[in-house]
Amino acid sequence: MINFSSENFTGVHGKVMSALVRANSGTVPSYGNDLYTEKAVDILKEYFGKEIDVFFTFNGTGANNFGLGCVIEKYQSVFCTDIAHLYVNESTAPEAFLGCRIYPVQSFNGKIDIDELTRSIKRLNSIHHPQAKVISITQPTECGTVYSIDELLTIKKICLDNKMLFHIDGARFFNAAAHLNVSLKKISSEIGVDILTLGGTKNGIMYGEAVIFFNMPDTNSFRYHLKRSMQLASKNRFIAVQFLALFENELWKDFAVHTNNLAKTFAAEISNVPEIRIVYPVESNAVFAEIPGHLLPGLREKAGFYSWDEGKNIYRFIFSFDNTLEEIEFFTRQLSMGNER
Amino acid sequence: MINFSSENFTGVHGKVMSALVRANSGTVPSYGNDLYTEKAVDILKEYFGKEIDVFFTFNGTGANNFGLGCVIEKYQSVFCTDIAHLYVNESTAPEAFLGCRIYPVQSFNGKIDIDELTRSIKRLNSIHHPQAKVISITQPTECGTVYSIDELLTIKKICLDNKMLFHIDGARFFNAAAHLNVSLKKISSEIGVDILTLGGTKNGIMYGEAVIFFNMPDTNSFRYHLKRSMQLASKNRFIAVQFLALFENELWKDFAVHTNNLAKTFAAEISNVPEIRIVYPVESNAVFAEIPGHLLPGLREKAGFYSWDEGKNIYRFIFSFDNTLEEIEFFTRQLSMGNER
Amino acid sequence: MINFSSENFTGVHGKVMSALVRANSGTVPSYGNDLYTEKAVDILKEYFGKEIDVFFTFNGTGANNFGLGCVIEKYQSVFCTDIAHLYVNESTAPEAFLGCRIYPVQSFNGKIDIDELTRSIKRLNSIHHPQAKVISITQPTECGTVYSIDELLTIKKICLDNKMLFHIDGARFFNAAAHLNVSLKKISSEIGVDILTLGGTKNGIMYGEAVIFFNMPDTNSFRYHLKRSMQLASKNRFIAVQFLALFENELWKDFAVHTNNLAKTFAAEISNVPEIRIVYPVESNAVFAEIPGHLLPGLREKAGFYSWDEGKNIYRFIFSFDNTLEEIEFFTRQLSMGNER
Amino acid sequence: MINFSSENFTGVHGKVMSALVRANSGTVPSYGNDLYTEKAVDILKEYFGKEIDVFFTFNGTGANNFGLGCVIEKYQSVFCTDIAHLYVNESTAPEAFLGCRIYPVQSFNGKIDIDELTRSIKRLNSIHHPQAKVISITQPTECGTVYSIDELLTIKKICLDNKMLFHIDGARFFNAAAHLNVSLKKISSEIGVDILTLGGTKNGIMYGEAVIFFNMPDTNSFRYHLKRSMQLASKNRFIAVQFLALFENELWKDFAVHTNNLAKTFAAEISNVPEIRIVYPVESNAVFAEIPGHLLPGLREKAGFYSWDEGKNIYRFIFSFDNTLEEIEFFTRQLSMGNER
Repeated sequence: MINFSSENFTGVHGKVMSALVRANSGTVPSYGNDLYTEKAVDILKEYFGKEIDVFFTFNGTGANNFGLGCVIEKYQSVFCTDIAHLYVNESTAPEAFLGCRIYPVQSFNGKIDIDELTRSIKRLNSIHHPQAKVISITQPTECGTVYSIDELLTIKKICLDNKMLFHIDGARFFNAAAHLNVSLKKISSEIGVDILTLGGTKNGIMYGEAVIFFNMPDTNSFRYHLKRSMQLASKNRFIAVQFLALFENELWKDFAVHTNNLAKTFAAEISNVPEIRIVYPVESNAVFAEIPGHLLPGLREKAGFYSWDEGKNIYRFIFSFDNTLEEIEFFTRQLSMGNER
Repeated sequence: MINFSSENFTGVHGKVMSALVRANSGTVPSYGNDLYTEKAVDILKEYFGKEIDVFFTFNGTGANNFGLGCVIEKYQSVFCTDIAHLYVNESTAPEAFLGCRIYPVQSFNGKIDIDELTRSIKRLNSIHHPQAKVISITQPTECGTVYSIDELLTIKKICLDNKMLFHIDGARFFNAAAHLNVSLKKISSEIGVDILTLGGTKNGIMYGEAVIFFNMPDTNSFRYHLKRSMQLASKNRFIAVQFLALFENELWKDFAVHTNNLAKTFAAEISNVPEIRIVYPVESNAVFAEIPGHLLPGLREKAGFYSWDEGKNIYRFIFSFDNTLEEIEFFTRQLSMGNER
Repeated sequence: MINFSSENFTGVHGKVMSALVRANSGTVPSYGNDLYTEKAVDILKEYFGKEIDVFFTFNGTGANNFGLGCVIEKYQSVFCTDIAHLYVNESTAPEAFLGCRIYPVQSFNGKIDIDELTRSIKRLNSIHHPQAKVISITQPTECGTVYSIDELLTIKKICLDNKMLFHIDGARFFNAAAHLNVSLKKISSEIGVDILTLGGTKNGIMYGEAVIFFNMPDTNSFRYHLKRSMQLASKNRFIAVQFLALFENELWKDFAVHTNNLAKTFAAEISNVPEIRIVYPVESNAVFAEIPGHLLPGLREKAGFYSWDEGKNIYRFIFSFDNTLEEIEFFTRQLSMGNER
Repeated sequence: MINFSSENFTGVHGKVMSALVRANSGTVPSYGNDLYTEKAVDILKEYFGKEIDVFFTFNGTGANNFGLGCVIEKYQSVFCTDIAHLYVNESTAPEAFLGCRIYPVQSFNGKIDIDELTRSIKRLNSIHHPQAKVISITQPTECGTVYSIDELLTIKKICLDNKMLFHIDGARFFNAAAHLNVSLKKISSEIGVDILTLGGTKNGIMYGEAVIFFNMPDTNSFRYHLKRSMQLASKNRFIAVQFLALFENELWKDFAVHTNNLAKTFAAEISNVPEIRIVYPVESNAVFAEIPGHLLPGLREKAGFYSWDEGKNIYRFIFSFDNTLEEIEFFTRQLSMGNER
């Protein structure tokens, strides 16, 4: 069956798997003290700037919470949208591991509401209140939209005004860069982002994420946090080599361009059906569509996809590196047939 | 250079890698809701008993702390040896994640001192004191020794006497079974072990551990703990399939017998050198030896190995699935030459 | 200067102080194993029902977090209003001590929005999401309003429907009972409340709160949580005796009736000034009023009171046992004078 | 019955109670923003040095854990004796609140074993191991012995050598100063102590401890930790005024000299009984004695005292401000009578 459910249902790209196989030779120091890890850090410095520190984690929840855990004190707070993965899909890891407050801010099309954010950062210096420390956004958002450079700069300014840090959960960060058609630096170091979770797992690798800190004054303690967060891989070469594969000939860009295009095509196709409404601007590899109930059974037979909001008949279609135009055609053909009936 | 440093320096066994490649086809549900995971659980039930619950984690620190986190209340305590991985090598993950006390108990040859353990379990019902809940041992121990069935039963009895649970950190559990020449059940379910961390990473796989709960009355909440512990793999099929590979034709037993034998051979060889003393009984895949300083430089050229106790000139040699008799011969030849000089 | 700022600015009622002095004789067992504590528990059983367990804490933040900490698992969540003391004024104690998520729900006149609450309790059984466990309300609310018995029953029903527990932060609980003119039982045990923080400090005592658990199946572990929460008083007789004083001849009722009346009188008086608007229904000992800026300087000279919402010119006036009608008259006279100018 | 059990069984000294009554007038800002608190800080600066920061907590467990919580990172460790209150009698508050490791070090006569301490501070810079940050001692120790100035300087040197901080749990700190016949400064600021828990509750007050930080570079965040630790008293004037009473005419010194003398007298008296052995040097207000079982029933009728080590027949006698020479005479008379029988 066609998979429009999740990039996590997809396996590993052939080039990544080959890299894993190739890296499986010889003796290599553990815990990241190996040449693969060194090279992976080097290539990330090429793309994100020399002044970065990089750590690798097993998964996204680990990456976000390790990253935030390095910079936040227990009496402080993180602000993110009310639909952020960090807030909705990481169980209580933030509380358990960071011990801090996560404040939800209303979102529009997945993006943090700047006005409410500004209003929410308050009671600074009040002993009774968690103290604002980090703004965390998801780029692209959980709704598949992409913050523009101007929007990112606006958020950075709010950070600076309040002496806060800027964190980006970039589980699908490559798709954002591809959509904006800019370099990775342009929407990270050049914006003044402080911490970036750079996702790997959703981008055709088996497991592993990178956490990038930009221009941090003192990162010496971060490695202890990595271990404490149960995210330090003993055979880290296998995470590192997957990132090397992702950056070799900019494979990440191929994936991002391909899946962004699939989303655009899919959206164009299904919006031909009058009863279907595209819910959010299609700016990365996801399409959210309102689909009337009578069309569903036929579609469900052809492909897997998530119910995003059951009550409102909103469904999410997400595209992975191994999805194809043919799959979309096959699916939309069914849709027009279903509609005709 | 020869690797006697750590199983973590070794890569992935060919059969495991092949299994990974084979599993990399098609769309598979995420987060462990896949057939690979189902099969891996089934095979573990075959070997450990039907009444088990199994969860997979990324690494050993995650496995130990997830496992203990499922059963311990915040006001309780875990007892382990003063050299336990849990106590010495998992940073403050136990405190951060469990919020409980870890009480160290003196060890002898790596094994928990039963008398001190019994004495240490005290102040039960005292409101002021962390309440004893779990005894955690490492099998084989960090010194490479193996608890006998009688010793395991003794510890189980102490658990029962104090209404405590029995946890085994089995990062190298297969080596213990091979040494005792018994089934896996014999030293787990049949003893009355409650929680077992069954290591994969040190046994020729890329990443992944299994946490097995035996006959637990209510394990429904454990899956929430798994997520909260940042150990839930989105593409869990790739962990599961590695365990399947480990159990296919009992590959784990091949590894365990092979590495145990290497250790025995190695110990026999080097103990021919009069200045060298074997420090702990050699019962699994590790040899600890006191080696006079003047012999070291030559050895260091031939192989990597850990310094276990710098002050006492004690070194650890540990054997992985890919170590060979030839490597041992090569190494010990150097040793005898060094000694002759 | 007149204190309309906070009951915390007020000292201790004479009868409470006398009780403290009287209790200060002789040797008394520590940590609550004394007759004063026993008697205080007995009197609370009289007022709240026999099936309660009672623990004493030092302060309100300690009480709320100890109480919730006894019943909540780390992967679960608490729902309260977005203006709850628990959410706004207890720093990150909930996260640090409970390790769980606190979900804010929109409030109206200080009361939790039932519709949004119902919508917010979701993703039950989703491994990725904190699991709903407790609904916590403040009674009277932070806006001085009082939940009616019907409203309480509605919330209890939502608890039952979702297998959740019902917690009340009753820092000023006595004022709610006085307003509704019902017994303490009527709005606690008879509703099916599970945990009640019964405030003492804001009701004329020096320090100390009681946490009451109703019909809990197993409360044996709670005393360990009390110690762990750093809230166990060594000389607990002095907390207990203050509660005894509060209940002797129902002193608490005198306070509650008196301060509720002061609030009503105050509201009636100041609402004579056309420019002033009473913001929330006056149902306990607090009045929230919108006051134009030009009136403020004169008022500030006469009395202390809190700015509730600077931007909207809303101020809080709160009445303590030692406030008097004369103070209100004096203050409102100034107000009318200020207004006339 | 005579109380030799605990200073916590004793009430409040008359002068302290009078101070509480006197402070109970008028309106006073809450949360420590009052003149009583300001004065209490001033008097502590007089006795401990100008470069201190002072915070007040409700109890000793709160004081120790708040104090340590201000300076420790989650991946670090605290070293204390295996009989430290922090380790034995504060439940899991250190883990829950600090999230760090507490490493026990062997003690002799209650004092930390310097050799084992030095050996235990290891694996510095190892990512896998909790990083040494604080040495915490109890002065006087739980065995009633007092660290000499030389011993304190030795510990300070170990701190400096390892870039660690020096914490003293001074629940009975005044008794140590009285024993050594030195100023409070002499055994705190002049030693280079970094954090001192200065006990009040065991010294004739109702509740309250002071946490003193010496020459800390940045203490701005500590007030947030205080709130987060659930130790911020709303009516803090009542804690502050008790400390004022303790320092008025050096009442603390009267208590300390008196109770130290009682202990010395008691020890001298009971050591006349040949079967009784004084277990630790008597240097503060506690006496530990080995008493044969046949003598106990008679003694138990006369006075309350703690069993320190049931198996070894060791009992603790501790003296409070309200104990008298007459009580000791009465008790020891019984002892000699019992012995004669």
